[in-house]
Amino acid sequence: MNTAFHPSGVITLTTDFGHKGPFVASMKGVMLSHFPTAKVVDLTHEIIAHWPAEAGFWLERSYRYFPAGTVHMAVVDPGVGTSREIIAARHDGHVFLAPNNGLLTPMLEAASDAAVHTVDIERLERIGVSTVSATFHGRDIFAPLAAEIAAGKCQVESLGPWTSDLIPSWVDPPSRGGDGVSGVVITVDTFGNLITNIDASHVADLKDPVVQVGGRFIPLRRTYGDVRPGEYLTLINSFGVLEVARSEQSASDGLGAERGAPVTVRGA
Amino acid sequence: MNTAFHPSGVITLTTDFGHKGPFVASMKGVMLSHFPTAKVVDLTHEIIAHWPAEAGFWLERSYRYFPAGTVHMAVVDPGVGTSREIIAARHDGHVFLAPNNGLLTPMLEAASDAAVHTVDIERLERIGVSTVSATFHGRDIFAPLAAEIAAGKCQVESLGPWTSDLIPSWVDPPSRGGDGVSGVVITVDTFGNLITNIDASHVADLKDPVVQVGGRFIPLRRTYGDVRPGEYLTLINSFGVLEVARSEQSASDGLGAERGAPVTVRGA
Amino acid sequence: MNTAFHPSGVITLTTDFGHKGPFVASMKGVMLSHFPTAKVVDLTHEIIAHWPAEAGFWLERSYRYFPAGTVHMAVVDPGVGTSREIIAARHDGHVFLAPNNGLLTPMLEAASDAAVHTVDIERLERIGVSTVSATFHGRDIFAPLAAEIAAGKCQVESLGPWTSDLIPSWVDPPSRGGDGVSGVVITVDTFGNLITNIDASHVADLKDPVVQVGGRFIPLRRTYGDVRPGEYLTLINSFGVLEVARSEQSASDGLGAERGAPVTVRGA
Repeated sequence: MNTAFHPSGVITLTTDFGHKGPFVASMKGVMLSHFPTAKVVDLTHEIIAHWPAEAGFWLERSYRYFPAGTVHMAVVDPGVGTSREIIAARHDGHVFLAPNNGLLTPMLEAASDAAVHTVDIERLERIGVSTVSATFHGRDIFAPLAAEIAAGKCQVESLGPWTSDLIPSWVDPPSRGGDGVSGVVITVDTFGNLITNIDASHVADLKDPVVQVGGRFIPLRRTYGDVRPGEYLTLINSFGVLEVARSEQSASDGLGAERGAPVTVRGA
Repeated sequence: MNTAFHPSGVITLTTDFGHKGPFVASMKGVMLSHFPTAKVVDLTHEIIAHWPAEAGFWLERSYRYFPAGTVHMAVVDPGVGTSREIIAARHDGHVFLAPNNGLLTPMLEAASDAAVHTVDIERLERIGVSTVSATFHGRDIFAPLAAEIAAGKCQVESLGPWTSDLIPSWVDPPSRGGDGVSGVVITVDTFGNLITNIDASHVADLKDPVVQVGGRFIPLRRTYGDVRPGEYLTLINSFGVLEVARSEQSASDGLGAERGAPVTVRGA
Repeated sequence: MNTAFHPSGVITLTTDFGHKGPFVASMKGVMLSHFPTAKVVDLTHEIIAHWPAEAGFWLERSYRYFPAGTVHMAVVDPGVGTSREIIAARHDGHVFLAPNNGLLTPMLEAASDAAVHTVDIERLERIGVSTVSATFHGRDIFAPLAAEIAAGKCQVESLGPWTSDLIPSWVDPPSRGGDGVSGVVITVDTFGNLITNIDASHVADLKDPVVQVGGRFIPLRRTYGDVRPGEYLTLINSFGVLEVARSEQSASDGLGAERGAPVTVRGA
């Protein structure tokens, strides 16, 4: 595990803002004002509105595809306008910035190396961030902070006190029993596939695993090509988690299952 | 007010093209051909189709979050294929390029420092732009021109004659009377909030202001958290204008109000 | 025709992945890991799902707007999980990477200068690509390969054997007879315009050409402004192909015509 942080100059953005209006763009403008050579990549701006669980899930599953030294900023914030802290965490050579609302909790609690700090807003004045005028936290606090960290101009440790007081996640972690594992659907992709929080390792030891979701029992297969059009299958997808699919159709529509739906896997 | 223009190398793009097909991408390709180190940021490509008022509004409200020296190019152009001029304007240390169709009019008429020039297409031949082959103005005229300006290779003043002949905006500016102000809904955001052209300064002096829209009277609050789910509120949003919202629901759906709807604010 | 390839550092991405989840972003992360100064441009991620014909069409029509030396990577892949080759082609000073599934076939078969090679996956191990762990080919094979080519660190010729064995396109090329030409609708744009694969040159010699599509006969005009609202027209669009439009309305809805619909042009 890579514990130091050597900035790569890359910043990723994850929000539920969508693509209308200048909400995402104004954050990028602020970043370029603080750090003109920042390389900003949109992770996604189509997180399910006000559902931090999806944002944290995708960050945990995809950060490793970015160069070590990347700053990942996520703003999915049902509590905007109310009081909640901002946390900055160093983990595996990357930095993560998000509201302390459960978004980063599953990843950080599972990490042995994570250094998590609460951002002391008053300390940000020296990087040109004013608490008073901050009405859009993504643009007015997160963006300049991410840019300064990505530019190597401030360290996570200097932002505020170390904390272990993480708000719980919006979903429970998968629970493992003797004969299987139970988890939930975290999100639905463009093709209607159900993406769960059940890791490949949770089912690796099960013999002939069968997945129960939406009242159906569906065997685990290797690839989409293993069934005929219209048939359901489950597989370990390219991000290492259990996925429920329907060949050439939407599993979500077919099963009436959405984010939050329970999923159970049992061995023979 | 910053009147000189020192290029930052940043270009923003605002269109109603959406994300299907290579329409936006081909503009970026042309920019990179003219200026290989251009930093291009999508402001938004989801402007309401053929509604320049929204594009100009968002540009006016968001340009200041970009570095001084940025070139902002907006192509929302109901008149494409018919004759209309292109204007280039320098204002507050930024440059703006758009059709002379009212898009930039509210911002430029309110600015004391704006230098506005009509683009003389024939002068563009020296930067490799041919009038004859220009069938997609965004790609064939605006993109190379924005790139050349952002690269510091041509100045607004050199593009054509100074003009004060701006086509009127598609919406009237807010009108202020003794006891209040009247404006319109400029756009609706992803969450169904109604965003108006009424500036914070227009209502600052009103005592206990109440907003009339879609047949309802709604008080002005400080933040989204000030009402219960399902209740309406109005507030000054993070771009400094009056916004009409409904907690956890779409104000646009609830009020049946869309872009162009009248909004009035009165004091007690 | 420019036959050598001198990398510009630009990479374009064309997929049917949409904008949900980190599918596109993780490809960009891998590219930046291999080539930190890569300039990545999204061509579009809204190709019609599993319809390689549209991706190849837009690439052929838009690559020339990017700097010579650009790498164009397209992943629209109905056969993912089944065996199909990956091809890399050098053409007109650009490089193209795609599955050998017909996507690039129309462009490459029409090109006299194209050098097409099958990618030998085993040769990719030296650039850190493992066949075994490749479950998401766009991220695990295409992205690192595109980055290495764009960085000038590997050549098309070194990737595998030369091939002329191109899988046929999903649509036939336009067929020309004595009095006209027949083609198909390749895609429908944001405004409902039908975009065909009939090139401007195919109709240049026809006298008073009339287009037959969806049971209607529609004359060829010069520009959208040439008809009144609600009327149909056809024109040669800004990418040099025949387009069927309806003034201020959707031609696709009005004619009930989608991708794949036949279109015929006849002279007087």
